[in-house]
Amino acid sequence: MPELEPHRIVRLEDDAVVVLDQRRLPDAEVELRCASAAEVAEAIRVLAVRGAPAIGIAAAYAMALAAERGEDLDVARDVLASSRPTAVNLRWALDAMREDPTPERAARVHADEVQRCRRMGAHAAELFPPGARVLTHCNAGGLATGGYGTALGAVRAAFEEGRVAHVWVGETRPLLQGARLTAWELEQLGIPHAVIADGAAASFIGNGDIDLIVTGADRIAANGDTANKIGTYGLAVLAAHHRIPLVVVAPTSTLDPTAASGDEIPIEERDPAEVTTRFAARNPAFDVTPGELVTAIVTERGVHRVPYAETLPRETAAAR
Amino acid sequence: MPELEPHRIVRLEDDAVVVLDQRRLPDAEVELRCASAAEVAEAIRVLAVRGAPAIGIAAAYAMALAAERGEDLDVARDVLASSRPTAVNLRWALDAMREDPTPERAARVHADEVQRCRRMGAHAAELFPPGARVLTHCNAGGLATGGYGTALGAVRAAFEEGRVAHVWVGETRPLLQGARLTAWELEQLGIPHAVIADGAAASFIGNGDIDLIVTGADRIAANGDTANKIGTYGLAVLAAHHRIPLVVVAPTSTLDPTAASGDEIPIEERDPAEVTTRFAARNPAFDVTPGELVTAIVTERGVHRVPYAETLPRETAAAR
Repeated sequence: MPELEPHRIVRLEDDAVVVLDQRRLPDAEVELRCASAAEVAEAIRVLAVRGAPAIGIAAAYAMALAAERGEDLDVARDVLASSRPTAVNLRWALDAMREDPTPERAARVHADEVQRCRRMGAHAAELFPPGARVLTHCNAGGLATGGYGTALGAVRAAFEEGRVAHVWVGETRPLLQGARLTAWELEQLGIPHAVIADGAAASFIGNGDIDLIVTGADRIAANGDTANKIGTYGLAVLAAHHRIPLVVVAPTSTLDPTAASGDEIPIEERDPAEVTTRFAARNPAFDVTPGELVTAIVTERGVHRVPYAETLPRETAAAR
Repeated sequence: MPELEPHRIVRLEDDAVVVLDQRRLPDAEVELRCASAAEVAEAIRVLAVRGAPAIGIAAAYAMALAAERGEDLDVARDVLASSRPTAVNLRWALDAMREDPTPERAARVHADEVQRCRRMGAHAAELFPPGARVLTHCNAGGLATGGYGTALGAVRAAFEEGRVAHVWVGETRPLLQGARLTAWELEQLGIPHAVIADGAAASFIGNGDIDLIVTGADRIAANGDTANKIGTYGLAVLAAHHRIPLVVVAPTSTLDPTAASGDEIPIEERDPAEVTTRFAARNPAFDVTPGELVTAIVTERGVHRVPYAETLPRETAAAR
């Protein structure tokens, strides 16, 4: 199977953090060179690099770059931490770099993330029935994670085991991460797929064309409430209504034991112009799916199920 | 309140049916002159004129034009009937023109449709709680109906009675009829509104920001199963999950007693290029919402509720 090599997505060079500009995909593969922590923060803010784990990796490289350049590391950390409000991995990566802001440590953050994705994929693949027709939303692939992918890593692992017949790709308005990024990754990987409008998912689920929904997560509260790309909550309600599983695949770094429930997860509201420049609009970037609507939360350590208020805190404690 | 005059949307002139080209809205108000029944059918097919009642009106004027031009009326009828598969009003209007294919008869089809919308609006407005925050999907406004509007007519009537505080407009991918047409109409009417991505509706409903969902319909089976713009079914499941009403507003011409259930309603699948030109895609234009998820079906004759298998056939018989 063709690879989407981690260094293509984000890497540290002598004088810059280099990221594949996800805003330009799928039409062009353009690299963006970020010469300071502030430029990496800006790349995160404008979504040139996106996806909770990929953001964390880019921030780790940014801290290593800042240290090499002799930047004020507290300032660098602050500017990076404030680049996106929802992603908890970002804070996690910045904490990991605090004591050892070296290129080697950042590379380990990156390699660990990819390795974790492979473990998540292996665990999650077992939840796919043979020949599954899978719906995914947004992009939780190699692009989002600096390698293999979380939800899409599960799809890759399951596909290799013959468990995936077809992937339905929700286009994911307003920024179309599904139609642009996930479809591009699936094309590179040779996995059969079709893009659908977000509003069409209900119809395909209702018609029995979807066996399983799999998504990533940006942040998961202690009770399993899951913040993910806007639209996930609606898919969760549909999955429950039609009794098909909704599986969330995310690293333990996405678990936030300090948030008791989704009520404590801040939801980023982005520029209304992403929706329409002609009329008034609202543009929340994420929604929160109650834990009870999530069939399983799969981390690199295994498959977790309700009651998450019991299973997740143990997981978090063991992982740290 | 400013008007969206029926003749601006569709009218018959000496040598053409003239339609406001809805593909160009909201950026430009451009009229399209259709010099034959085939040209009207093409305007319907490419969605220059869209919305089940507006399609019926345009087809009625097209038959009058065809008669004046000496076209073969059977051929004209066939080409019009095949322009969109889901809209039952189209067949209904063609039947109405069969015995009297005159401009006067077509004008009466048009005037009757607008009058029916006003009656629907009056009936449906009673279902709006005071200060309602309403979500609508696609465009079931004056543009779609050759005048006042069905779902949006209900919003207009309710707004005039002080029952509407805010209208959430689902953008309605792939063709963005909500973001382009409904927002444009609401702007013209001075009704407060904000466009949201289709996937964001679940979050706003879940947060208690929406009191009522109101949509039009393209075709309603005898048991209340309702074919409407793709995405309606997902909203219906969300409405049921959150116990808010979903109200369908449509003329009796939309009722199809020959379809026992939604299984017998053909669903138009449009060009995948409307979704994405870069990757494989699927593009069903409609979905079917089971009658049991529809709180009320409002026609020009009144408010109907479950069991629709009993209430709708009486309605259809009385209306014809």
